[in-house]
Amino acid sequence: MPVISLKTPSAAYDITIASGLLRTLAPRLNKLAKGRPFIVTSPEIWGLWHKQVLASFKQAPTVLFLPSGEAHKRLSSVESLAQQLATAGADRDSLLIAFGGGVIGDVTGFLAAIYMRGIPYVQIPTTLLAQVDSSIGGKTGVNLVAGKNLVGSFNHPLAVLADTDILATLPPEQLRAGLQESIKAGIIRDPKLFKYMEQNADAILKGDAKALTHVVTASVRVKADVVANDERESGLRMILNYGHTIGHAIEAATSYKQLLHGEAVGWGSIAATHLGLSRKLITQAQSDRIIALILRYGPLSPFKATAAKLVALTSGDKKNRSGTLSFILPTGIGTVQIVRDVTQPELLAATESMLALMRAGTGQP
Amino acid sequence: MPVISLKTPSAAYDITIASGLLRTLAPRLNKLAKGRPFIVTSPEIWGLWHKQVLASFKQAPTVLFLPSGEAHKRLSSVESLAQQLATAGADRDSLLIAFGGGVIGDVTGFLAAIYMRGIPYVQIPTTLLAQVDSSIGGKTGVNLVAGKNLVGSFNHPLAVLADTDILATLPPEQLRAGLQESIKAGIIRDPKLFKYMEQNADAILKGDAKALTHVVTASVRVKADVVANDERESGLRMILNYGHTIGHAIEAATSYKQLLHGEAVGWGSIAATHLGLSRKLITQAQSDRIIALILRYGPLSPFKATAAKLVALTSGDKKNRSGTLSFILPTGIGTVQIVRDVTQPELLAATESMLALMRAGTGQP
Ligand SMILES: NC(=O)c1ccc[n+]([C@@H]2O[C@H](COP(=O)([O-])OP(=O)(O)OC[C@H]3O[C@@H](n4cnc5c(N)ncnc54)[C@H](O)[C@@H]3O)[C@@H](O)[C@H]2O)c1
Ligand SMILES: NC(=O)c1ccc[n+]([C@@H]2O[C@H](COP(=O)([O-])OP(=O)(O)OC[C@H]3O[C@@H](n4cnc5c(N)ncnc54)[C@H](O)[C@@H]3O)[C@@H](O)[C@H]2O)c1
Repeated sequence: MPVISLKTPSAAYDITIASGLLRTLAPRLNKLAKGRPFIVTSPEIWGLWHKQVLASFKQAPTVLFLPSGEAHKRLSSVESLAQQLATAGADRDSLLIAFGGGVIGDVTGFLAAIYMRGIPYVQIPTTLLAQVDSSIGGKTGVNLVAGKNLVGSFNHPLAVLADTDILATLPPEQLRAGLQESIKAGIIRDPKLFKYMEQNADAILKGDAKALTHVVTASVRVKADVVANDERESGLRMILNYGHTIGHAIEAATSYKQLLHGEAVGWGSIAATHLGLSRKLITQAQSDRIIALILRYGPLSPFKATAAKLVALTSGDKKNRSGTLSFILPTGIGTVQIVRDVTQPELLAATESMLALMRAGTGQP
Repeated sequence: MPVISLKTPSAAYDITIASGLLRTLAPRLNKLAKGRPFIVTSPEIWGLWHKQVLASFKQAPTVLFLPSGEAHKRLSSVESLAQQLATAGADRDSLLIAFGGGVIGDVTGFLAAIYMRGIPYVQIPTTLLAQVDSSIGGKTGVNLVAGKNLVGSFNHPLAVLADTDILATLPPEQLRAGLQESIKAGIIRDPKLFKYMEQNADAILKGDAKALTHVVTASVRVKADVVANDERESGLRMILNYGHTIGHAIEAATSYKQLLHGEAVGWGSIAATHLGLSRKLITQAQSDRIIALILRYGPLSPFKATAAKLVALTSGDKKNRSGTLSFILPTGIGTVQIVRDVTQPELLAATESMLALMRAGTGQP
């Protein structure tokens, strides 16, 4: 059973990835902490998985619900959950369990950071994105009207338990979008993962347990390795933002409503690949392979926004004093570098190429 | 100029106590951090002190307002302030400045802990209570409907700047209530402070700058010393709760509306002194001195609650498995110990004695 140990200056914990983990949940939690468990989840996920979760408990844990959706990733949800915890008698020794996707994980991790100034918690991620990305690394938080993830804490869980069986009920587009983060992991740091995803796309997309466990494990290894070396994102951790700069611009341009996060990252990765190619950091063949893999795990939903608009949104807060922009660009398959002098015309050209690819795919002019 | 250095496992900073500190505020802040400053304060305090605060700035800092009062110590205030920070362009390098009493300090310290997952902040406490107690030690947070300070963070400031001049505009009952925390500091750890407060009551209560600076400095030293040795309240820090167990019960019995916090602590200290006497941990003479000093800095507002009610409220969450209660009790003037086997009848008797004293003072039967 793959277990990846993550050690940072502030925490050390294991990420376990396997099929069937839920069946032994209670004894696993019991090894981590003795306090009374409280599960935070959404009604939908609980409806699908409560039997398996409860199977190993002698006494059923208390369950608190957060409705599904990014709209509920707000301080008001945190307050309501904290109030429910207090009313139910949760104290400093209680254990929170985040059972859901990235939204549940980010909210619960933040709740654990601030309830009674901090109580322990465990992540049980139920989306692919949460298993390979959001449950690992200790970033927790919620959105403001002014922007995403603007309030939060660095707060690591006691453990991450990723049961790949749970992905079986995930809508296919959620699975595909999450896999874009695994492709990203391959591009930035793991050529073997990249190749595995090229060669086993059918099995992975069908949800084959062995294939998924392999992909999740390799992706987690990349993220854990990066976070262990740069917990607070002062350097290396920035490479995890590969594809995210333009991805965020796309999300902002479409009001965070039209595309899944992973889809926006997929488009952003394509643009970054074009940039890498135009800088001759990668060969045409490498660029083709990267773009082919991203599209293989598509279709990525198309969207409407001009290159000029996306470039403007990108430049907003990221511009250097010199007027140039910093980007993570591929220098091969499995390696990237931070390029700090990307000019607006360069970025515009790369974004145009990405949009042309989109139009070609959708058959639109 | 008294400067007390506080060093804990997680932070190290100076607490400066002096008259006239505001006049040199901008250069002082500039030594601590280069980021853009944002002041959080209440309209009342700003109305009284903005000229002095702004005097040393070349460019006026941005000011964010929180209305006065414990009712505003809530997550919704934190969200509104965070939203204002984001809109005004505050980033990871910005500097928050808490300019107010304990409410402003607790809210701003918590806001600093979670805005963009943590930005630096400075405390400029403007009440006696905030100068001697709440601005020091890194406890920050807000209230839930379910109870006080139930969500928050441990988050130390870069510095505490306590300008005793600011206390001049404080309503006298606020000064008196805050001084109960200084008396507490004397009882638990500083016999000289206790004696100074006995001998200089007139000057202190009149707001004499030298006397106040002396009292604030000595009180801060006690708190800083305790916090340095037990940041997370696993042992020693509990002694700061002297007088607070029954104090909290009194506040809860009066719905946090009738008494100032320091007044409730004063009554609680009297009850704890009765307990210490009945246990023969202190002599009658010592008990008399303690109670006389507490009342000298009164009058403590009277309130209506039976001893039975207060004992019931105290027992709620504090009971040991054996049914007994833990209390911090005086063992002299300047020393306390944790007594873990206080029985309910004992506590009832001590509370009755305190209520009898209150009735005697008010002339009520
Ligand atoms: N903390 C981090 O480091 C980090 C990293 C990346 C993303 N994020 C955050 O993660 C969030 C996105 O996470 P997400 O993509 O998991 O979205 P999500 O949490 O909204 O889940 C997506 C949808 O899938 C449903 N779902 C979840 N698990 C399911 C299952 N097993 N079966 C059926 N349905 C299921 C959910 O109810 C929801 O409707 C964003 O808020 C993003 O900011 C955080
Ligand atoms: N963090 C901690 O360790 C800690 C410790 C003790 C208390 N506290 C918290 O502190 C809070 C109480 O603090 P407080 O007693 O300072 O109350 P407060 O902050 O409510 O201030 C009391 C009143 O005095 C006014 N005021 C403040 N400074 C003034 C000045 N210089 N001139 C005129 N008016 C002024 C305020 O506007 C307010 O109306 C409580 O919420 C309590 O939980 C925290």
